[in-house]
Amino acid sequence: MSLKLFVIGCGSATPVGQRISSAFALKKASEYFLIDCSEGTQMRLKPLGIRMNKISRVFISHLHGDHYFGLVCLLSTLHLFGRKEPMHVYGHAPLKDIIDLQMKAGNTTLCYPLHFHEIKPNQATVIYEDETIVVSTFPLLHSIPTNGFLFQEKKRAVNISKSFVEKYKLSSKEIYHIKNGNNYTDKQGNIHLFEDITSPSPYKPKSFAYCSDTAYYEDIIPYVKGADLLYHETTFMDDMKDVALDKLHATTSEAATIAQKAEVKRLLIGHYSARYSSTEPMLNEARKIFPQTIAAEEGLIIDI
Amino acid sequence: MSLKLFVIGCGSATPVGQRISSAFALKKASEYFLIDCSEGTQMRLKPLGIRMNKISRVFISHLHGDHYFGLVCLLSTLHLFGRKEPMHVYGHAPLKDIIDLQMKAGNTTLCYPLHFHEIKPNQATVIYEDETIVVSTFPLLHSIPTNGFLFQEKKRAVNISKSFVEKYKLSSKEIYHIKNGNNYTDKQGNIHLFEDITSPSPYKPKSFAYCSDTAYYEDIIPYVKGADLLYHETTFMDDMKDVALDKLHATTSEAATIAQKAEVKRLLIGHYSARYSSTEPMLNEARKIFPQTIAAEEGLIIDI
Repeated sequence: MSLKLFVIGCGSATPVGQRISSAFALKKASEYFLIDCSEGTQMRLKPLGIRMNKISRVFISHLHGDHYFGLVCLLSTLHLFGRKEPMHVYGHAPLKDIIDLQMKAGNTTLCYPLHFHEIKPNQATVIYEDETIVVSTFPLLHSIPTNGFLFQEKKRAVNISKSFVEKYKLSSKEIYHIKNGNNYTDKQGNIHLFEDITSPSPYKPKSFAYCSDTAYYEDIIPYVKGADLLYHETTFMDDMKDVALDKLHATTSEAATIAQKAEVKRLLIGHYSARYSSTEPMLNEARKIFPQTIAAEEGLIIDI
Repeated sequence: MSLKLFVIGCGSATPVGQRISSAFALKKASEYFLIDCSEGTQMRLKPLGIRMNKISRVFISHLHGDHYFGLVCLLSTLHLFGRKEPMHVYGHAPLKDIIDLQMKAGNTTLCYPLHFHEIKPNQATVIYEDETIVVSTFPLLHSIPTNGFLFQEKKRAVNISKSFVEKYKLSSKEIYHIKNGNNYTDKQGNIHLFEDITSPSPYKPKSFAYCSDTAYYEDIIPYVKGADLLYHETTFMDDMKDVALDKLHATTSEAATIAQKAEVKRLLIGHYSARYSSTEPMLNEARKIFPQTIAAEEGLIIDI
């Protein structure tokens, strides 16, 4: 099972009609990582088939409201639903104060453990790792400290042939031991070499890079290099390049150029300025430079 | 022109489907007072015909998230829209810190003046007054400091007969002088008595009382007495009276009893628990005690 990305919201700072601001969910196995969480995010989960309680971690790229105003709302609702499982939030330091202050004002002590993991701006570092995935962060170029995220699946464990497992009636513990690179000694004392009894998994690990708000910034290329999917903001089209630069946002061609130079497989654009009611012109502009471009739309689900 | 109430959201703490939590707008002439502001409020304004920039004041009853999580979002959007007019926010002291902290985190200095007016819990007092309306606040009975609001139109100025105005070619200044209770002396020195040249306005000033989150609490009766419209929360139906009391919320019959004892003209119920998908059973229960009950529904507009 590979990674799936759910576009929950892809507008920029001001909500337009029913288009909400940045919010994405990355599904791995049965859990979800939430990436940014704008106002209204929690109301969009159910229609997308995302069970709120299956969100295990939330990654907030920066503290402009269109990227996090829905977070405290979501955390409160999970409390009211009686969540027991821990929740992990990754963000810049003031986010913890913001959460704490609002909980205190409501005299609320969350009924589940909330673990806050501070992201240091200007640091490229691993912030989470488990058996299947590594999440790292890297700096973007915006008007306040802003971080991108890279989600990289790990190589899958080797396969052991079914017939070998059955012949020697291998226990889970023995399988785990072999998969960790060890030889197997059977009851007769015969040694079966690791490389003889295993084969590499044919699965190619996938990666997703997320660049929320940023000006054109070639420094990110080494981090997003070769990603299966790169989300890169495109607040403006090219005719507004100067405005984009002034506000430290990117244009469609700039995002496409980063995608091209980083040799990613596919580019997902979003964070559209409220002035654009249709994504088609933006998509066309980006595709001139990078044909494998997809336009984010609320409700879009992408198999990475 | 009388007061108009817009129901923007009327759910309780957890959003259900597309039903959002507490948010109301009171229209007087061409301006709006926002009363509570839950997550998603700003997205519901346009469909109701409410121009965001016409909101002059926001009254927040208490600091449970379902009553204010949409406020910072709205204030931010007004900033992005380049508002120039001042905005007045009335709420308990921590709300100011919550706003300030989030603005600071986003490195945002609002481009319009934001005036914060602290509501002291446990105080019944006038918090705003202009030529046409008086707004006062009074304590409710809830798990954190919570205030109700009473919006009372003032008596309208007396009328001066059109023929008298024309005959003596009265200036605006002279009209204003007479309306303030003075006699008029014409150029010949004749004195025209105030009571002879004016008649009382036939308009009956209206009043709206708002009781957001509260247990059954007879202490509020003197404040809401005789209101043209009383909004009183009904989180639960009567079979959950014990739960209501435990959570310091009210049931349908309790709201209706307050309405009856306070001899209000009409009762508006809302703040429904997520367990109720239809308002009909609640309405029926309340109407047994107070027949002039209306059930709040998103998008409902009431001429007070």
